[in-house]
Amino acid sequence: MSKPIFEKIALVGIGLIGSSLARIICREVLTGHIAVASRTAETLQRAKELKLGDDYTTDAREAARGADLIIVSVPVGACGAVAEEIQPALKNGAILTDVGSAKASVIAQMQPHVPDGVHFIPGHPLAGTEKSGPDAGFAELFENRWCIFTPLPGTDPAALEKLSEFWRRCGSKIDTMDPQHHDMTLAIVSHLPHIIAYNIVGTADDLESVTKSEVIKYSASGFRDFTRLAASDPTMWRDVCLHNKDAILEMLARFSEDLASLQRAIRWGDGEKLFDLFTRTRAVRCSVIESGQDVDLANFGRQAVGHPQVVQEQQYQVASVPIAAAATPYVS
Amino acid sequence: MSKPIFEKIALVGIGLIGSSLARIICREVLTGHIAVASRTAETLQRAKELKLGDDYTTDAREAARGADLIIVSVPVGACGAVAEEIQPALKNGAILTDVGSAKASVIAQMQPHVPDGVHFIPGHPLAGTEKSGPDAGFAELFENRWCIFTPLPGTDPAALEKLSEFWRRCGSKIDTMDPQHHDMTLAIVSHLPHIIAYNIVGTADDLESVTKSEVIKYSASGFRDFTRLAASDPTMWRDVCLHNKDAILEMLARFSEDLASLQRAIRWGDGEKLFDLFTRTRAVRCSVIESGQDVDLANFGRQAVGHPQVVQEQQYQVASVPIAAAATPYVS
Repeated sequence: MSKPIFEKIALVGIGLIGSSLARIICREVLTGHIAVASRTAETLQRAKELKLGDDYTTDAREAARGADLIIVSVPVGACGAVAEEIQPALKNGAILTDVGSAKASVIAQMQPHVPDGVHFIPGHPLAGTEKSGPDAGFAELFENRWCIFTPLPGTDPAALEKLSEFWRRCGSKIDTMDPQHHDMTLAIVSHLPHIIAYNIVGTADDLESVTKSEVIKYSASGFRDFTRLAASDPTMWRDVCLHNKDAILEMLARFSEDLASLQRAIRWGDGEKLFDLFTRTRAVRCSVIESGQDVDLANFGRQAVGHPQVVQEQQYQVASVPIAAAATPYVS
Repeated sequence: MSKPIFEKIALVGIGLIGSSLARIICREVLTGHIAVASRTAETLQRAKELKLGDDYTTDAREAARGADLIIVSVPVGACGAVAEEIQPALKNGAILTDVGSAKASVIAQMQPHVPDGVHFIPGHPLAGTEKSGPDAGFAELFENRWCIFTPLPGTDPAALEKLSEFWRRCGSKIDTMDPQHHDMTLAIVSHLPHIIAYNIVGTADDLESVTKSEVIKYSASGFRDFTRLAASDPTMWRDVCLHNKDAILEMLARFSEDLASLQRAIRWGDGEKLFDLFTRTRAVRCSVIESGQDVDLANFGRQAVGHPQVVQEQQYQVASVPIAAAATPYVS
């Protein structure tokens, strides 16, 4: 077994990401001590029941004290307040990182509070599910997923390498880019898809000509795919929208332009234009599969819900994640 | 074993739906004879290799001759031409049905060609995947899925019951409604989701600030979900757009209004509005799960692509469908 990378790791925030980190850190023995902080007493209590750390506190500063690595896994809008809060406890030589989906904003919020001698390295593991809270985490979350760093000018290469090694041992592949490019890229691959999903589910929920129960009943015709993303954590996604505003508005404008053009093709019966677009997009799916970013199974492999064989497979898979996760009530 | 319901069934069109029907009809012994028709010689040859029927022809009229049940499974825009083609061969007392996703148009196209004494019962099994062609079909496709009939005034109850029994033995649950309501309902639960998915994948494919390879590489952050629907058969979806135009334009207008309002909330930093919408949509997902319309597994159960355990599960599941389906090249 390889030896621990850090003597003490502080996990500030113990939701889906924080609790998944706790589980993989424990499994891979990446530290001698995990301090868990959550500002919500109830969440902290649950983390304790799940045995996610060595000590537990609602005081982020106490958790950060003496830590070699501090990972801030809170909604993007709360990063600045956390940095300010923990600042007095940060040890010389410590690495401070985060997992937020909007890097320019996180940097603007946190950097002013980082003392000299502390290595602040903004990070973003592209990993998650539509579930949230400490029960939703699992050790395999980062397996084969990208973790993107947006290092500031003058970042210590040794600290960056140490943090990279940590994420690699969590299962991730590492990339680095500048914060602006990160924010533009995530706006199209992640933020726009979530916003569109939230929007279409809202539109369906508001209809008067088709009842809500019909929308649910017939949702396997396509709609259900969108309900998954639209079930993601509301606080996290509110903050992403507020903190990556410019890139998101740019992508929304392009999407709406394209949609207006598509709508016009439908109105005027331009079958050739429709066929061309629908053929081009099929090739994109092909690339996603070839690059190993999705399973090549019809309907994501979850075809016949309720079919005895599939139910058996579901149980098989659920059994591979902690029992607590399988038993979580869905809406927290 | 129950006895066959029909002496001879003609399958006009042998793509995803037609070939899935062939497989389940064969497995459940629902007829003594399956006649397969496809206007494409190559598709017909493939159907023959897969042993999907008892005889094979590119002439739909020949397949329909003497059949007790004729199932037209072709793109919606081709239904009228098929009805006209097979008309002279339709036997008195035969049941003629289809599987199209736009019922008012199918009725307008087919009904004028239906001879007296033939029972025309428009139908729509809400089942499918993003794959197409005779290799993509599998016997479990209709398991626990709805099949909606939109019977015309004066439909013979005995014929309707016989067709219902057929679909129940294919695994389906039966619903009936009027064609206009069907078309409005499908516009929101199926057509709009597909159109939105096609559109966002097109938008991403056109970007110059983020490269195509980055879009693919980071697609697991949300985007990949949309690529699945956007990989659906271009001909089928072109025809759906052209043949359910009014209902689709109505839903697109509502979606765009809502998106403009959401965009405004992002621009003006209205966090409360965003949080409220994102919370409301989460409850919809909850209902979809509770009603058994989707699996309650994070990321549809396909979390860690490339993870040894998941690869094993994929192989397990692929093995449950015909080997030919697993070996199909993705883009046809």
